[in-house]
Amino acid sequence: MTTAFDAVDLIRTKRSGDRLAPEQIDWLIDAYTCGTVADEQMSAMAMAIFFQGLDDAELSRWTTAMIESGTRMHFRGLSRPTVDKHSTGGVGDKITLPLAPLVAACGAAVPQLSGRGLGHTGGTLDKMEAIPGWRADLSNDEMMHQLEAVGAVICAAGPGLAPADKKLYALRDVTGTVESIPLIASSIMSKKIAEGTSALVLDVKSGSGAFMKTEADARELARRLVGLGSAAGVHTSALLTSMEAPLGRAVGNGIEVAEAVEVLAGGGPHDVVELTLALAEKMVAAAGLDADPAEELRSGRAMDVWRQMVAAQGGDPDAPLPVARHSQDVAATSDGVVSGIDAMAVGVASWRLGAGRARKEDPVQAAAGIHLNVQVGDPVVAGQPLATLLTDTADAIPRAEEALVGAFTIGESAPRTSLVIDSL
Amino acid sequence: MTTAFDAVDLIRTKRSGDRLAPEQIDWLIDAYTCGTVADEQMSAMAMAIFFQGLDDAELSRWTTAMIESGTRMHFRGLSRPTVDKHSTGGVGDKITLPLAPLVAACGAAVPQLSGRGLGHTGGTLDKMEAIPGWRADLSNDEMMHQLEAVGAVICAAGPGLAPADKKLYALRDVTGTVESIPLIASSIMSKKIAEGTSALVLDVKSGSGAFMKTEADARELARRLVGLGSAAGVHTSALLTSMEAPLGRAVGNGIEVAEAVEVLAGGGPHDVVELTLALAEKMVAAAGLDADPAEELRSGRAMDVWRQMVAAQGGDPDAPLPVARHSQDVAATSDGVVSGIDAMAVGVASWRLGAGRARKEDPVQAAAGIHLNVQVGDPVVAGQPLATLLTDTADAIPRAEEALVGAFTIGESAPRTSLVIDSL
Repeated sequence: MTTAFDAVDLIRTKRSGDRLAPEQIDWLIDAYTCGTVADEQMSAMAMAIFFQGLDDAELSRWTTAMIESGTRMHFRGLSRPTVDKHSTGGVGDKITLPLAPLVAACGAAVPQLSGRGLGHTGGTLDKMEAIPGWRADLSNDEMMHQLEAVGAVICAAGPGLAPADKKLYALRDVTGTVESIPLIASSIMSKKIAEGTSALVLDVKSGSGAFMKTEADARELARRLVGLGSAAGVHTSALLTSMEAPLGRAVGNGIEVAEAVEVLAGGGPHDVVELTLALAEKMVAAAGLDADPAEELRSGRAMDVWRQMVAAQGGDPDAPLPVARHSQDVAATSDGVVSGIDAMAVGVASWRLGAGRARKEDPVQAAAGIHLNVQVGDPVVAGQPLATLLTDTADAIPRAEEALVGAFTIGESAPRTSLVIDSL
Repeated sequence: MTTAFDAVDLIRTKRSGDRLAPEQIDWLIDAYTCGTVADEQMSAMAMAIFFQGLDDAELSRWTTAMIESGTRMHFRGLSRPTVDKHSTGGVGDKITLPLAPLVAACGAAVPQLSGRGLGHTGGTLDKMEAIPGWRADLSNDEMMHQLEAVGAVICAAGPGLAPADKKLYALRDVTGTVESIPLIASSIMSKKIAEGTSALVLDVKSGSGAFMKTEADARELARRLVGLGSAAGVHTSALLTSMEAPLGRAVGNGIEVAEAVEVLAGGGPHDVVELTLALAEKMVAAAGLDADPAEELRSGRAMDVWRQMVAAQGGDPDAPLPVARHSQDVAATSDGVVSGIDAMAVGVASWRLGAGRARKEDPVQAAAGIHLNVQVGDPVVAGQPLATLLTDTADAIPRAEEALVGAFTIGESAPRTSLVIDSL
């Protein structure tokens, strides 16, 4: 039992730009988790943190307190080294799907405890659930067994990990306090540290389709994430990557699975392949393994692990993926070169087509989404289809088209940009 | 029915420093009053306003929306002009007690709809309730009749005035969002405008014992209060006054009534007399009357109105006031001149002795408080009693003494300060 503090005193302390003491943070998170501190007090605190921040020491204690609010897992019984990846989220970001089996093929155990999507970015579990028969919920024993036997698992996180974060995240979502770097950092790392991985590689995205709109913010978030992981004894590193345009050509659920399978088969869009390999190399290094991800991909061993991983969770890797009932092309209005595709607009359009959900209890459509027929840098002629909208609900199409107005920029040339901005 | 907006969008708009549109403000206040916007959303909004403010147009609309949430009163049936006073609150501020009958003696109708105290500043109703038999709750008819017949009434505000403010104030109190100038201004003025007075004089205090710690903040609050009143057609003006030391020698409930009666009898501490007359002159001018408050005080006509006012509400103006069961002197530790008395410390000590309440359902002690034997500028010798602590609960004395440590500064001379800093 910690000392009792007064929630209003703590809010005023942070509001004034002063530091919260370690025992004040412990009390606050504990009292909020058990309901002594009310939602309206915690949302005022979150807004005060939005403006005044948390310094490194406060953030570290805050994260630890959120971890302590629940149970901690560990993977000590496994014969393979564990390594995990986390992305801050982007449009068309299906990288976990080819990456987990690829890194497992390199000899690591890859426990990808994932979530469902809310808003314009999709959720990894929503994508995997497009595979007929596949199930996201595994018992702890099932997960450990699969990690040992197959090497990779993508499944739902249990309710016991960082319950304080679960409660605080839901509150931030309805109170306009999501976009705070320290609150984002503590939310991500409390779950990842509680999960018990020994190494972690972060994909921190910046750009119009990401939470962090600027490179400076993304860099600061990456710095704090790596700091929190390292302080907790997790071998943590990060890639800073661009999220101006969607990743790959598929944005949705089932169509992203299909694109992941293309990559595992040795094809797929160049950007998805590039990022998958860049993250795999970092993860293999973090796990202390001596393997070449490019070779594991080329040899087909990553595809073998994918098929085993899907089958182990009840999915049929050979079953056809669901097909949308309605489709509609979006045509180019001029000749030129695609110089930009607004990731946020594509994400919103896909969400409106049924690939995402507005409330967490809503279902998603497995076949809905957007297939991009072009990527940045491709030449186009007027009338050529730029993208195909896919949905089971025809009346969603006009609202998706509306979201896409101005999303494709056609010019004389495309800017030369790199997908991987930096490695930390 | 106004258009529906999304509370999160509105919070993010304000958080980013952008303006809220008039129809967004109308919707927000209405939706909060009826519960569509949740407490945790409104507290995040209040904290965003703490940091980003409300400009004059936003504040005016916010105040109007709070007025529209309830009923509006009016005093059009009276033969006298109405004029009201509001103080932003200070320690020992019993000015309403002598002021209301004095201004009524000058020919105005003075409807003082007052509140109870919470925290270190006392409430006018708590003070008046120390008078045996006196009751704060009047029907609308009783109030109008008393205003016409006597000219002054001090009573509880009905529940119908600005219910949005009532709900928002309670929320701000528990979420560390009280100290926002626009939120303070809209809270005060929504009630005062809804009450229907035709003229209003504000006593805006600054200093250690006031909500506004600096003169600059007090000046800004005064500017916004006067602006809101004038825009609503209320003849509004303000005095900027100092609240570094307690006002007068009595801090509590019954003992403040006794001090008010001393002033009405032609005596009383110089600062209480000075401020009472300064505010009365402004009120008489605002009401368009041609009377001399100093003469009304000297003649005893103000005392006559006081006795009628107390009697009209069931009080006995001749009944002895309650006497505390326990008392304890605080002695000077050195010779010199009193150069400062910390108003906040005295307020907290009086509150701890039982004169104030921690929660709004707590009772207060009619006889508890602090009687100051000295004021700033008085010479003292070591051992001389500086103050007398009064309470019905003896075990409160050590905690009050603790609050008073360092509250009295004794030096070689006292600073020359003026009570009335400016007139707006």
